[in-house]
Amino acid sequence: MSRSIDLNSDLGESFGPWSMGDDAAMLSIVSSANIACGGHASDPETMFETLQLANENGVSVGAHPGYNDREGFGRRVIPMTPIEIGRMVAAQIGALQALAALAGTKVAYVKPHGALGNLAAADRDVARAIVDAVQQVDCGLSILAISGMQLELAARDAGVEVYSEIFADRGYLSNGQLVPRGQDGAMIHDADEAAARLINYLETGLMPVLDGDPIALDAQSICVHGDSAGAVDMARTILARLTDAGVTVSRFIQT
Amino acid sequence: MSRSIDLNSDLGESFGPWSMGDDAAMLSIVSSANIACGGHASDPETMFETLQLANENGVSVGAHPGYNDREGFGRRVIPMTPIEIGRMVAAQIGALQALAALAGTKVAYVKPHGALGNLAAADRDVARAIVDAVQQVDCGLSILAISGMQLELAARDAGVEVYSEIFADRGYLSNGQLVPRGQDGAMIHDADEAAARLINYLETGLMPVLDGDPIALDAQSICVHGDSAGAVDMARTILARLTDAGVTVSRFIQT
Amino acid sequence: MSRSIDLNSDLGESFGPWSMGDDAAMLSIVSSANIACGGHASDPETMFETLQLANENGVSVGAHPGYNDREGFGRRVIPMTPIEIGRMVAAQIGALQALAALAGTKVAYVKPHGALGNLAAADRDVARAIVDAVQQVDCGLSILAISGMQLELAARDAGVEVYSEIFADRGYLSNGQLVPRGQDGAMIHDADEAAARLINYLETGLMPVLDGDPIALDAQSICVHGDSAGAVDMARTILARLTDAGVTVSRFIQT
Amino acid sequence: MSRSIDLNSDLGESFGPWSMGDDAAMLSIVSSANIACGGHASDPETMFETLQLANENGVSVGAHPGYNDREGFGRRVIPMTPIEIGRMVAAQIGALQALAALAGTKVAYVKPHGALGNLAAADRDVARAIVDAVQQVDCGLSILAISGMQLELAARDAGVEVYSEIFADRGYLSNGQLVPRGQDGAMIHDADEAAARLINYLETGLMPVLDGDPIALDAQSICVHGDSAGAVDMARTILARLTDAGVTVSRFIQT
Repeated sequence: MSRSIDLNSDLGESFGPWSMGDDAAMLSIVSSANIACGGHASDPETMFETLQLANENGVSVGAHPGYNDREGFGRRVIPMTPIEIGRMVAAQIGALQALAALAGTKVAYVKPHGALGNLAAADRDVARAIVDAVQQVDCGLSILAISGMQLELAARDAGVEVYSEIFADRGYLSNGQLVPRGQDGAMIHDADEAAARLINYLETGLMPVLDGDPIALDAQSICVHGDSAGAVDMARTILARLTDAGVTVSRFIQT
Repeated sequence: MSRSIDLNSDLGESFGPWSMGDDAAMLSIVSSANIACGGHASDPETMFETLQLANENGVSVGAHPGYNDREGFGRRVIPMTPIEIGRMVAAQIGALQALAALAGTKVAYVKPHGALGNLAAADRDVARAIVDAVQQVDCGLSILAISGMQLELAARDAGVEVYSEIFADRGYLSNGQLVPRGQDGAMIHDADEAAARLINYLETGLMPVLDGDPIALDAQSICVHGDSAGAVDMARTILARLTDAGVTVSRFIQT
Repeated sequence: MSRSIDLNSDLGESFGPWSMGDDAAMLSIVSSANIACGGHASDPETMFETLQLANENGVSVGAHPGYNDREGFGRRVIPMTPIEIGRMVAAQIGALQALAALAGTKVAYVKPHGALGNLAAADRDVARAIVDAVQQVDCGLSILAISGMQLELAARDAGVEVYSEIFADRGYLSNGQLVPRGQDGAMIHDADEAAARLINYLETGLMPVLDGDPIALDAQSICVHGDSAGAVDMARTILARLTDAGVTVSRFIQT
Repeated sequence: MSRSIDLNSDLGESFGPWSMGDDAAMLSIVSSANIACGGHASDPETMFETLQLANENGVSVGAHPGYNDREGFGRRVIPMTPIEIGRMVAAQIGALQALAALAGTKVAYVKPHGALGNLAAADRDVARAIVDAVQQVDCGLSILAISGMQLELAARDAGVEVYSEIFADRGYLSNGQLVPRGQDGAMIHDADEAAARLINYLETGLMPVLDGDPIALDAQSICVHGDSAGAVDMARTILARLTDAGVTVSRFIQT
């Protein structure tokens, strides 16, 4: 059984006068924070404050670039070429890196957000463009990718250090994809059930699926949500259950 | 007589479908390019293309951060604390640095744009906040400041390498400030007259002023405009006259 | 004693994925809603939903234009000429009017937001420009202004129907201005105290001030905040106390 | 032969410091101006100035709403539901109507821009949502649609006055659609050839197509481009040739 796993969450998604989620609570739970970079959310103040709080909590920092579409929160595909996507991603990583320097920390990895993350999982050219951009911006950056999808493969091909994640509260299909939202079994609402699935996964390396036998998935991190009070409670319960089961939650990047 | 001087210009100020100025022409004239970073102008595509063109022309690259106000083109003071200004400037520098990496070049210096540049020249706290941000983002960055003003002093105090500029087409007052736009003598419209003033300055270190005897100014760079066909012609004429007079135009930063 | 008064609040200030305040609760309390128009906050979806909810609650609808500055939430003065302000205000009113048509209601009045509201209270030229814009866009629109300030005077001069407001939770000075935030007595935190002051005002027409004898103020509306849980509670308590005291809360515009 | 036709062009597409096209020249040529409304381009100043200039030239004014995507200039499909599109379109029409009131003119019709226009031509639900929004905002507004496509049909179904347009410089296919850009025959670059085709169309009602016999098209307006010097020259030549042939160019909406 894997005795150690990372917990990651999407944070720093406030903007100007508007706040989202309880970042302070989540940063006391997770070991890695995917921080918005001013594309789908955030601004320099929010980036700085989230970076500083992550640093104080010993949480690993990742850039979480998304489509430049605040109104749609990065959940809509904006038609762009892979090359354009790479440049957009680079600009966002660079902005977060500069603010990390002000906050006395460093960006360790990159995980694309929302619709961009889904596209990078499905589209090889987009995945490659993101990997190329990450590598050119800073060859010390790792990538956090959805387990088994195109972004993970593209990073591996390019020799970029890559870690993969599974989702704490989502159901899986036998092809390794998530059950689409809106379908039965898409969401796991009960924190104890989610924790039990994760502990079982850590013991066996197998994830139950809706349409067949459990499948093998490789993951160094578990993605938990933090954008509502209920989400924070679920994350806290999952951390407690994992700890009770003897699992250490720690950053996938140890530096 | 100073046998060498830098020519700098504000470039990369297009945005989405809108273009501004003739960057290709200007990059064949100047030795340093102040490139907009997505605040008052530009976007990742424009940044990348301008950086690539600067690199091809052997032109030194500076970040040109401005207020996050495209509608006002960074020419309006947006009320912000010095700390907020520092973080905004950091985010913009970081974005340009990341795209510079993609374009195979490096950002060498920072020059604040428009209303932010004027405020940094006049306000010691803003000047310090910008210097601090630049130093923390990358201690290898220099600053390009208006000769004799607060930003230059703050950079010197902090031990940040600083270069200063004079304006090719603006009249000066005996206190070292520019004649305000709209007043007689504010603008020098004739390229030959502008060139003659600059050559005289390079020989004597003295700049004529409207209200008294010429004053001593220290400058390693001359700022020329490039946002209209007339501006490009003036820049070209100034370069030719300087060259005819035996002055070498070259980057103030040699690396 | 005035047996009837309006309660107004700034609503519809969500944006994209971010929500602000509890509009549903506030729309069950107030009689007039100042609805953001896509400048300092809001978007077409938020405008439509707020308009529809206001309509369902029989609440009078006002346009609440603000500086086009979401990051600063319209609380920063963006340097603009009065003419530019008039055009910005017109565009925002027009957008809300169109969505009101979709929601089956009508915009009845205009109240400028935040820094724009303060400037319109203090600056006669800005006040006139806003009044002119309102009048030209739709001569059936009224204006809601801070009692005794420039916007009220400008509206009266121009023959535009104008109503004035006092603030439920702010201290006053003898010149009729608010005690600046941050000074002692600026804010009234206790709902019962705020309600008692308002009931006393309605009985006497006099408002206590920090630096002298109570002053006469003329107001048809009381502004209550709704952007936090505490604010909603205060608004609810004020409504209850006013009702207990025999005051009817009703829209200042009856149509 | 049709003795009268309208010429329309997309105008008012400047933004902040950036200008696009030569609106003054185009407004001396066309009879109807499709004016950007702050979505894909424009701002209150640009809207006002374009409206005022249109009014001075006796040119009919249409709202030209587009996706809220300046970086992509409204040429990218932003995923939105038909209902969301309707509300976005309404907000933009309303903004332009308000500025038209300031400029002493009135918006007479609506023509969707770019990717939104193409989607409205192809997708019945989007077409209906736009027609519904137009009708609810102001039942006096007409629609200008691509000849023979969904938006025209939806307007007709809803009893909204609708006019249809053909393109001066685009090749057609036998199904009535344009030859896709990038394919041979997509663009007609020669002004005289374009004018000859139009005159022939006005005489016969038939448009030549690339893949078969000429087809019947019904149109009350010809769309000409105005976003480059070459485009202005083409528009001017077409106007001259039409006039020489005895065709009157006049607004399709006479009020």
